[in-house]
Order: sequence, then C-alpha cells, then structure tokens
Amino acid sequence: MKFDLQKSIAILERTPDVLTTMLQGISKDWIHTHEGEDTWSPYDVVGHLIVGEKTDWVVRTKIILSTSENKIFVPFDRFAQLQEKQDIPIAELLTEFASLREKNLTELTTLQITEQDLTRTGIHPELGEVTLAQLLAAWTAHDLGHIAQISRVMAKQYTSEVGPWKAYLKIVN
Amino acid sequence: MKFDLQKSIAILERTPDVLTTMLQGISKDWIHTHEGEDTWSPYDVVGHLIVGEKTDWVVRTKIILSTSENKIFVPFDRFAQLQEKQDIPIAELLTEFASLREKNLTELTTLQITEQDLTRTGIHPELGEVTLAQLLAAWTAHDLGHIAQISRVMAKQYTSEVGPWKAYLKIVN
Repeated sequence: MKFDLQKSIAILERTPDVLTTMLQGISKDWIHTHEGEDTWSPYDVVGHLIVGEKTDWVVRTKIILSTSENKIFVPFDRFAQLQEKQDIPIAELLTEFASLREKNLTELTTLQITEQDLTRTGIHPELGEVTLAQLLAAWTAHDLGHIAQISRVMAKQYTSEVGPWKAYLKIVN
Repeated sequence: MKFDLQKSIAILERTPDVLTTMLQGISKDWIHTHEGEDTWSPYDVVGHLIVGEKTDWVVRTKIILSTSENKIFVPFDRFAQLQEKQDIPIAELLTEFASLREKNLTELTTLQITEQDLTRTGIHPELGEVTLAQLLAAWTAHDLGHIAQISRVMAKQYTSEVGPWKAYLKIVN
C-alpha cells in the first residue's frame, strides 16, 4: 500500500479511542503487568505514546517543513516514560494522550501538506536522511505496533491459564 | 495472573467496541489486505470471530456444564469465514459480532458460573481434557491475539513506506 496522508490520519485519529476502549476502567492486573524484565506494561506504552506526541512526530514534521538549514532531529528518548511516576491513573494518561493527539492532528492539517512536501527530508540522528512521507508512515505503523504490543502483553498474562490451548494461541508463545 | 471470570469478561465485552473503533469507516485498503498468501485480512479476522461466537466458546461452555455424559466438543472450523462472500460491508460484520458477543456474555452471566464450575471439564477433539477456566481464558487470549493480529496486518501495509524506520519498527519485520 502506497503512503496516503488521509488514510494515515484515519488511523492516527482513532488510536486514542482504541486505547481508551481497551484500557479505561479495567483491573490494574491487566494494565501494570508486562512480559518480563525490561519489557513494557500497557501503562508504560501509553506513557511512551504521550512522549512521542510531545517530542517526536509533529515536532519533526515541522523541522522538515521549516526553512531552517538545520534539519537534524533531536534524538527521541524511547525510555522517558519509565522515569515518570507510576501513580497517575491510566484514565488521566489516556485523556492526556487523546488531547495531545488531537492538537497534533489539527496542527498537521493546518500545515496543508502537499504531495511535494511529502518528499522533503530531514536528518534522523541515527537513520540519516528520511522523507516526510516516511516519518508519517512510521508514526502510523508505530501506533499500530503499540496497539498490537498492548494486546500481546495482556494476552500473555493468561499464558498458563489457557492450559492446552497454548498450542493454538500463537500470541502467548 | 490467575484466571478470573470478571476480569475476563471485562476484556471480552470490550472487543466489539475495540474492533469497531479500529475498522469502521476506514478505507478498504486497510481492511481487505493481508500479510501474503494464506494469511488473513482484518475482514477475515472479524468473520472468524463471528464463527467463534456462533459455534465455539459459549457452545462449549454449555457442553462442559451440561449433565450429558458426552462432553466431546464439535471441532471448530477455523477457516469457515473464508468460504463466506466478501461483499458484506465490514460495518455489518462488526454489528453482527457485537450482537452475538452481547448475547453470549448475557448467556454466560445467566449460567452463574461458580469457582467449582470452573474446574469442570470437557473433551477437546485434539487437545483432550480441558477445564472451563481454561476455555474461558483461551476465549479472552484469543480476542487479544486477534486484535494484535489486525494491528500487525495493518501496520505491515506500510512496511516499505516507513523507509529507514523499518529498523526500529519490529511490527513490520
């Protein structure tokens, strides 16, 4: 599938509702458990998505579209959320994420990105030259990846509870 | 995490809303594409979940709790949905799934399952003896597995579009 801005926004604007539907109001046993040492809980993933809204995707979009000569992105801290206190209720994190995402998508629309703009580039500190289309495709796939991760982490809490069904359920293996 | 009926129902009752939020109204390019030959599209997965509501989880629960001596489950056809026509709009499938799931969870509640009931058993045609707790845990993990699958299948549509970010996005690898 070729990159398409509107089809990407259709995914990006749904993610807060998807996560709220999955996580709001359910037991902490689903939300604060993970897959083992140095892996993330659903709570950590939502925190990570918030950091992305604040420091990554739209910030980098604006760097690419700016008239500045310096197009080097600031490195993204993938572990920032792990430094935060874990006592903010998940409902608050979900609201914050939804609000930041809405603001960012409004900003994206305001930029009136053209087909030409999508080919403009920035410099990723590790990956080198990347286009705006690649950045926005990555933002979309990143959302979907973390929805999949949250589902997997939750499913794995029942790895032993499913008994013989473990053989059929790839997700817990 | 130990099996808990209410914590499982909390997941099971959310799944139709999660899938509707993810899939309703978005482009067919996201819904009818898959990961390659003999893999399922998000559309196929929703069809599979419908077959499960009709023939699997609650049907088997009732076999386990019945007074019949024959506790052997009818084999579940994991490919039944692939025989269906693909021209029913996804919105209709999602509504059908939501309606069947609601009916099944109402039925589950009506059964007033006790801790004792959870240890009762049925015979899976391939896996052998399984408990009711294992069946209900498998139902829950199965939902989460298919939410993860749908997210992954969608993310993979952008595998080439993310460019160098492929190195960071495990989901498209």
